[in-house]
Amino acid sequence: MQRPDLLIRPFVEGDAPGAWRVLEPIIRAGETYALPRDMPEREALAYWTGADRRTFVVEKDGEIVGTYYLRANQAGGGAHVANCGYATSGAHRGQGIARKMAEHSLDAARAGGFRAVQFNFVVEANAPAVHLWRSLGILEVGRLPEAFHHPAAGYVDALVMFRWL
Amino acid sequence: MQRPDLLIRPFVEGDAPGAWRVLEPIIRAGETYALPRDMPEREALAYWTGADRRTFVVEKDGEIVGTYYLRANQAGGGAHVANCGYATSGAHRGQGIARKMAEHSLDAARAGGFRAVQFNFVVEANAPAVHLWRSLGILEVGRLPEAFHHPAAGYVDALVMFRWL
Repeated sequence: MQRPDLLIRPFVEGDAPGAWRVLEPIIRAGETYALPRDMPEREALAYWTGADRRTFVVEKDGEIVGTYYLRANQAGGGAHVANCGYATSGAHRGQGIARKMAEHSLDAARAGGFRAVQFNFVVEANAPAVHLWRSLGILEVGRLPEAFHHPAAGYVDALVMFRWL
Repeated sequence: MQRPDLLIRPFVEGDAPGAWRVLEPIIRAGETYALPRDMPEREALAYWTGADRRTFVVEKDGEIVGTYYLRANQAGGGAHVANCGYATSGAHRGQGIARKMAEHSLDAARAGGFRAVQFNFVVEANAPAVHLWRSLGILEVGRLPEAFHHPAAGYVDALVMFRWL
């Protein structure tokens, strides 16, 4: 899908404040990622942009509206399967940004020589994400019973989702 | 199961050489763990005994014949599910050491307040492990297609296994 208004490019150090503006409300909400809700900025950015992964940002009109990382899901004999994490600015939901990032990440993973992509922990209550992954052929290969404690919904299942590249 | 010949106790720094004697052949073989086969000793021990986990050793006649770790499988909303890794000395297989460690770890996880235990990446070709987990009620909740590249068998599935505590 062509989206000339959205520019996806590698994260550079100067993107840290913009990426944090996207990540902070998501981490603080604690509804989709199994990360500590009080995770400090420095620690969160170190995680999101770690040396073991490639991190990208989505720019719209010069503003960072999304960010994702791509890494090997396992080391050694598991290094041929990619893993990604995505975050979209709350003010820019429903504009196709997550889909654009997902498509970009599948291309990047394929180009990086990965054979498949796996998401280890998709909170099922995060319906838009589950719907988006399914629409891209990233399908459930596992169900982790009550693996996530959602601040509002309580214990909910998480899904393991997978797609060949 | 009472096994007065086996002592399970917390890992202490002086156990590093003994633990490495157990771990090194397993990592070098690359048949069961998704770790780099050439992982250096220091890095492997830092991983196995990291600050985010509790590590135990099994002693038999004063020798370390097994070791395992117990940690939260996820942070934040996923911190109520435990995860473990186990390693048994090659010279002491088939003596019930892995089972003893597994039982100990389930007790330790329960005592630590975890609600469940999850293994993220059980190489299905590792039949003794899969058999042992099933016999302890740790059952398959996911199947990762060809997620592991086994040095002899090629691409094989890995299982996600789970049990309530």
